[in-house]
Amino acid sequence: MVRAVVMGASGFAGIQLVHILLAHPEMELVAAASDSLAGQPLAKAYPAFAGITDLAFCTVEEAKAAEAEVAFLALPHTASLSMAAELVAAGMAVIDLSADFRLKDASVYEQWYGVPHTERALLEGAAFGLPELFGEGLAQAHERWSRGEAVVVGCAGCYPTATSLAAAPLIRAGLLRAGATVVADAISGVTGAGKKPSARTHFCTVNENLSAYGVTTHRHTPEIEQILGLQGRLIFTPHLAPLQRGLLSTVTMPLADDAELASIASAQELYRAFYEGCPFVEVLDAGEQPQTSSVVGTNRAHVGVAFDGRTRSVVATGAIDNLGKGAAGQAVQCANILCGFDETAGLEGAALPV
Amino acid sequence: MVRAVVMGASGFAGIQLVHILLAHPEMELVAAASDSLAGQPLAKAYPAFAGITDLAFCTVEEAKAAEAEVAFLALPHTASLSMAAELVAAGMAVIDLSADFRLKDASVYEQWYGVPHTERALLEGAAFGLPELFGEGLAQAHERWSRGEAVVVGCAGCYPTATSLAAAPLIRAGLLRAGATVVADAISGVTGAGKKPSARTHFCTVNENLSAYGVTTHRHTPEIEQILGLQGRLIFTPHLAPLQRGLLSTVTMPLADDAELASIASAQELYRAFYEGCPFVEVLDAGEQPQTSSVVGTNRAHVGVAFDGRTRSVVATGAIDNLGKGAAGQAVQCANILCGFDETAGLEGAALPV
Amino acid sequence: MVRAVVMGASGFAGIQLVHILLAHPEMELVAAASDSLAGQPLAKAYPAFAGITDLAFCTVEEAKAAEAEVAFLALPHTASLSMAAELVAAGMAVIDLSADFRLKDASVYEQWYGVPHTERALLEGAAFGLPELFGEGLAQAHERWSRGEAVVVGCAGCYPTATSLAAAPLIRAGLLRAGATVVADAISGVTGAGKKPSARTHFCTVNENLSAYGVTTHRHTPEIEQILGLQGRLIFTPHLAPLQRGLLSTVTMPLADDAELASIASAQELYRAFYEGCPFVEVLDAGEQPQTSSVVGTNRAHVGVAFDGRTRSVVATGAIDNLGKGAAGQAVQCANILCGFDETAGLEGAALPV
Amino acid sequence: MVRAVVMGASGFAGIQLVHILLAHPEMELVAAASDSLAGQPLAKAYPAFAGITDLAFCTVEEAKAAEAEVAFLALPHTASLSMAAELVAAGMAVIDLSADFRLKDASVYEQWYGVPHTERALLEGAAFGLPELFGEGLAQAHERWSRGEAVVVGCAGCYPTATSLAAAPLIRAGLLRAGATVVADAISGVTGAGKKPSARTHFCTVNENLSAYGVTTHRHTPEIEQILGLQGRLIFTPHLAPLQRGLLSTVTMPLADDAELASIASAQELYRAFYEGCPFVEVLDAGEQPQTSSVVGTNRAHVGVAFDGRTRSVVATGAIDNLGKGAAGQAVQCANILCGFDETAGLEGAALPV
Repeated sequence: MVRAVVMGASGFAGIQLVHILLAHPEMELVAAASDSLAGQPLAKAYPAFAGITDLAFCTVEEAKAAEAEVAFLALPHTASLSMAAELVAAGMAVIDLSADFRLKDASVYEQWYGVPHTERALLEGAAFGLPELFGEGLAQAHERWSRGEAVVVGCAGCYPTATSLAAAPLIRAGLLRAGATVVADAISGVTGAGKKPSARTHFCTVNENLSAYGVTTHRHTPEIEQILGLQGRLIFTPHLAPLQRGLLSTVTMPLADDAELASIASAQELYRAFYEGCPFVEVLDAGEQPQTSSVVGTNRAHVGVAFDGRTRSVVATGAIDNLGKGAAGQAVQCANILCGFDETAGLEGAALPV
Repeated sequence: MVRAVVMGASGFAGIQLVHILLAHPEMELVAAASDSLAGQPLAKAYPAFAGITDLAFCTVEEAKAAEAEVAFLALPHTASLSMAAELVAAGMAVIDLSADFRLKDASVYEQWYGVPHTERALLEGAAFGLPELFGEGLAQAHERWSRGEAVVVGCAGCYPTATSLAAAPLIRAGLLRAGATVVADAISGVTGAGKKPSARTHFCTVNENLSAYGVTTHRHTPEIEQILGLQGRLIFTPHLAPLQRGLLSTVTMPLADDAELASIASAQELYRAFYEGCPFVEVLDAGEQPQTSSVVGTNRAHVGVAFDGRTRSVVATGAIDNLGKGAAGQAVQCANILCGFDETAGLEGAALPV
Repeated sequence: MVRAVVMGASGFAGIQLVHILLAHPEMELVAAASDSLAGQPLAKAYPAFAGITDLAFCTVEEAKAAEAEVAFLALPHTASLSMAAELVAAGMAVIDLSADFRLKDASVYEQWYGVPHTERALLEGAAFGLPELFGEGLAQAHERWSRGEAVVVGCAGCYPTATSLAAAPLIRAGLLRAGATVVADAISGVTGAGKKPSARTHFCTVNENLSAYGVTTHRHTPEIEQILGLQGRLIFTPHLAPLQRGLLSTVTMPLADDAELASIASAQELYRAFYEGCPFVEVLDAGEQPQTSSVVGTNRAHVGVAFDGRTRSVVATGAIDNLGKGAAGQAVQCANILCGFDETAGLEGAALPV
Repeated sequence: MVRAVVMGASGFAGIQLVHILLAHPEMELVAAASDSLAGQPLAKAYPAFAGITDLAFCTVEEAKAAEAEVAFLALPHTASLSMAAELVAAGMAVIDLSADFRLKDASVYEQWYGVPHTERALLEGAAFGLPELFGEGLAQAHERWSRGEAVVVGCAGCYPTATSLAAAPLIRAGLLRAGATVVADAISGVTGAGKKPSARTHFCTVNENLSAYGVTTHRHTPEIEQILGLQGRLIFTPHLAPLQRGLLSTVTMPLADDAELASIASAQELYRAFYEGCPFVEVLDAGEQPQTSSVVGTNRAHVGVAFDGRTRSVVATGAIDNLGKGAAGQAVQCANILCGFDETAGLEGAALPV
């Protein structure tokens, strides 16, 4: 068993990590750190753990001393920078769920996050945590881990994951019209807004309501552009809807004039070939559309693809659990690859059928 | 008091018409027709009417005989065709909520709805029921009504209303990039799917779920293209979210290279000037985004506009109640104009603040 | 027009008062006081008011100086005590929505609310604001108001209103088994928990969740006992469910051995006779059960009654909008009676049918 | 591996059985029968299974021929009667989720279900499927199974399970006031209403709504009375709330005059002692109340207990997933006991923490 700690375990992504790791066949959760809740049993803050575990939150300092091999960081953006450096120095592999090690160009990070990137060397060596699209980098990270070298994985964000899984097969096949802008409109459940109570997350604000937010300014924009090679050509608009978990991204992509793609069938074939061998991605049948409820609680992604002959465009849709494949699930998937476990270890479950 | 009937009064749009008309200061609801529920008190099927009205549903035949001056048709698509003809022949003005009198080119109707358009003469004379964008046609309809001539109004659909209110100021100002495609991704509450119970409208299907539907094939596509003059250049994707009422459309529009629009402030100024004098449309402040909950139960629309300097695009958002400004409210607004009443008669109410 | 102010206008009950008063035909809202939001337009905090009113929140001091005749207090419990005294001294009639003037026995108040009752004289003279059950007191208040005397109305709480409307016809008829305990299990939407963001009102806590709270300790217990004359014999358990507005109370009452009540029909007859002439209370047909959605946004109450021959009990159910008949609507109803207006002035609207 | 079939696999309880059995370490699901969906892949009707299983629904006849050892019947009430007889005759153990083998007195069954009970011999021998309260019967069933004899388990219903788990410790300790009636008010999510689309399960009926139903007439009444020995002394009122899964029952029980129970602490001690060794029942700390969200997707039950000194009553609350411990989970728990597996096999998972 590989010993793992979660830093920031009391937030929504952190506690989902705890949920997964407690049942993981190859990893042992040795500490769930949360300075604000230190000492409190997990089951007090999250009664789903009553009867499941007696574990209590510990302090970050206690977690650092827990002799773990892998540290998951579910910390706010910018807080992971120094923490990662410290844990790497202490010999742990770091799987970071924040944005701190995602953007390869530190100046882009600084522009969108408004703080200096203080760990550029780590950033340079960091693997990008979206296995279906960046498997090679994670394979190299596994090599480094095997040799006892420092490893940082900067896991992809929730919107980037759903959007990129929907868009990558077409774009990587070179079928996007040259120079075209891509429109990604995505909808998220409220867990994406985090645990902190605010007017925005009040039930009476969100319930029976729909709204866009962060229009033209959401920080996942440069991340998606980096993943898909779309610098300056993505218009990304996230929306909030009254559900707890679930994220759907709808990506509209104009086809190149010479793209040999003339039907939904060929689009689907392209997508299925692309995700061949990926245990967590399902490309749905023609005419089917992903439903977020089908992937809630899992690390799975459902992708739908539609072909619009009228405008010569493809509309691709990707559904994930924002806390699953969009956060904690993906982090564990990356850790599985890093440690050489079966990629699906601890992540096998299906969503509730209804 | 103008005497009004509602045909198809037991469906969701029909019953919302009944709700509005019962409190209308200038119109008297003389019949609420539903062959399937004829004889049943409204309050039996919709207990919100208990203590409000003793009215019972009547048959369509009874409603035809009710000596009404205005008939609202809340019937399924294609069913309005012959009904409208018959009622016009009987001297009533017809406000149709179906798609049967929206598409000016009958062949487009036949292509998207799969049935022949049997009332082309009526179609040709029909006014388009979206007052903020087609006020002149409704003013002419009022003239015809005043002269005792036949009048049909084909009210805009729910998605077309929200999408067009968000997009029209920019497009009518000629600021859209020439030949560019426009992407409209919209989200609707479940009342938009109608009253008929089905697997799709089952609580356990819709709740905690998000999905796109009708991707590349939704029948509102040609209607939006007609309204905005975008033939063949709109990619419209509707989505279903777990709420009852409310519809949000997010429209992404690339700017013409020479468009003199360089900031959110100027975009907003453009929008506010466009909707000057429109009692039901609010253009929100810069940085604010429409929330559907702010317009539920009303005939109001909230519009937000954002400017993206990176991609030289405008992202405009429109929020309505799909049964209000998207259906029954708009129909009554059209009837008000037709009959020469104050445009806001019976439609003054604000949404519940929370 | 009677000039009215709302103190505590930015909370959920307060803003619902504002919503009603802005459309009231006999009252003019001259100030909406909220020290925390003073200066901010209502439409900024509650965008449902965009285009409806330009009114901004003012300070409490400004509201005091607004020369109002009626003051609605939507303040936290205990805060109304001194405020009511001050406003009464300044010549205003006070309609208090807090618990401060509900419990006639000040020692009961002190026991359940944990603070001294500092305004016993005002309490003694206060009318109880639940018109269907305490009409005489409100009629006397109207007399006092007409003579220019001090008036305080302590409006009933949300749970007491629904519970008492369901139970009173049977209990006042003397049909409750002597000495029997009554069980009231009630369910409320989340607006009942107030506007303040907290872990408890976070969407992700409440959504897809049910729980009881305040079991055996809820402060509405003595209030219901007072209304129904059940001192020490009520077991009241409130529950929270994932909806915004709406409150349902289910009251189980054992029948006296000699009660001449042998069927649902006779129970219903009793209830209908009791509410004869009450414009806001509907007793549903046998076999029908109240649905909270039928009264949302209104001042109406739906009451259902069922007879259990097996256990010789009556199970009565009452549904209200907790912010309507359970708070702001009822306050306005009381003010209407106080001022001699039609009881239904400003409160005529029906709930949305769907 | 024990071979298992599910009859009625396409309904909500049936498909939850499939969900559990597909991951069960000791049972192999060899057929999922649904005559209405026979031939259709599970993943088509329930896309949560996409990528999880290629299994398709089969006919009931095919399932009968599947050489299973255990048959789970998730059929409508009355349909299990002949099916159980047939499968038992064919040598299968039957775990029935319907009401057909729950009520030990066939005449009570006939009175409440309105049909003759045609399998009285099987009924007489049937074990009652609520392991925490009827463990001995299930242990005997295991003996019979081990000897190759016929076995039928009639699993407890959803409301009876939650209600009885909350009430049994107090009642079995003899602390209920002699002759007292017990009030159980329970709230269920909409999966409890089944898969069939109807006006009642339409999203727009249930959403933002609360109502009681089956008042004084719900068929779970005699079942709860049987379990708790309360014949003619239970008043049970179920309610529907807008959530998918989750059931909460609140049980109010007057204490015997001589009951030596004087505090919440002693009540809790009683409950904890009662459920000592029960892996699926958690008695929460004093002051904590069960939340259904903490048990969704699991076979777990959370029980809260409160002591009311004012009325000398105990208010106990029980939360379950109506499709988990209230249906499919409990059925698998019973099967585990029957087959001699670890009681928790296949049922270990915790609910999502948020």
